[in-house]
Amino acid sequence: MALAYDGAIQRLIDAFSALPGIGPKGAQRIAFHLLSAPEDEARALIDAISEVKQKVRFCDVCGNVCETSPCPVCMDPRRDHTVICVVEEPKDIMSIERTREYRGLYHVLGGAINPMANVGPADLNIPKLLDRLKTDEVKEVILALDPNIEGEATTTYLSRLLSPLGIRVTRLASGLPVGGDLEYADEVTLGRALEGRRDA
Amino acid sequence: MALAYDGAIQRLIDAFSALPGIGPKGAQRIAFHLLSAPEDEARALIDAISEVKQKVRFCDVCGNVCETSPCPVCMDPRRDHTVICVVEEPKDIMSIERTREYRGLYHVLGGAINPMANVGPADLNIPKLLDRLKTDEVKEVILALDPNIEGEATTTYLSRLLSPLGIRVTRLASGLPVGGDLEYADEVTLGRALEGRRDA
Repeated sequence: MALAYDGAIQRLIDAFSALPGIGPKGAQRIAFHLLSAPEDEARALIDAISEVKQKVRFCDVCGNVCETSPCPVCMDPRRDHTVICVVEEPKDIMSIERTREYRGLYHVLGGAINPMANVGPADLNIPKLLDRLKTDEVKEVILALDPNIEGEATTTYLSRLLSPLGIRVTRLASGLPVGGDLEYADEVTLGRALEGRRDA
Repeated sequence: MALAYDGAIQRLIDAFSALPGIGPKGAQRIAFHLLSAPEDEARALIDAISEVKQKVRFCDVCGNVCETSPCPVCMDPRRDHTVICVVEEPKDIMSIERTREYRGLYHVLGGAINPMANVGPADLNIPKLLDRLKTDEVKEVILALDPNIEGEATTTYLSRLLSPLGIRVTRLASGLPVGGDLEYADEVTLGRALEGRRDA
């Protein structure tokens, strides 16, 4: 007996190990789970994967994931078409939707400027954003990028790019997370919270 | 827009969330990874799942996972057929094989006695073990169950069951893990290490 599993099991472990966030032990656990799971459960997983690959596309307007293009958000007449919120990834849209605070449109960049990973402005979905801003309709662009170095760089880049267009460009507030503890806030966050202080 | 993803993506996230060790955030990450992954990668995962469900069976003799029954270990004439190592799960066989210290056969119980989860001796693959011990060939049974409450209970149960058969019944040694630190050993482990001390 070799020190790897029999063909099919090892191939399944390898396939799961290749997914983000799953290590060899986790992949082994999932493989044995599927092995003893009812046929239906394995079938449901297979169907879900192939359905996503067949049906899900990116919206031609905003770059969000969707089954119809333009996506339901872009097509929704009840949403505020004068505001576009720029995010890095489609999953960020879900995070903002969960706040129930925003009723405008979105634009997915598909990443952030990251010289270390060779991602420059040309690799992002910026030309389509500029096309969308050519209409008179849009009054404000909210830059909602991740609060890290790459997100900051992208925010600065877009802010400079968009400000000559005469559209209001805003960014998310930095500060203390709600429910957090002052003692455990890092200096940069606490500094931003001081800088952005408001009348109480 | 609802607070869940469009149909197909949400179904894929749900299918991955149902797997052991994957939470909602991890499932979302995997779903978006598969969405933008090349068709080949998704296809490889689908094929690996269906191949395992089609090909992999449990060995009729020892209960190990295999593509042929009896499994390659049971059929291997170079292995020592006078020793059977009893384990809880097929993955434990791989752990023992990795030590390269053992050349005997295996027997998979399919779990351990756990009254809290309603698993009793009748739910384990014990009758087949007794059948295997009826031949004159087997001289020793090594009980290699997990060193926790359920494993201990199962070890005690099997030890009482097998000792009247006149076969040597052994269990794995308890003690300090190699590479560990005495200071961080728990009292029970340290107690076992003292109890099982050997001449240096």
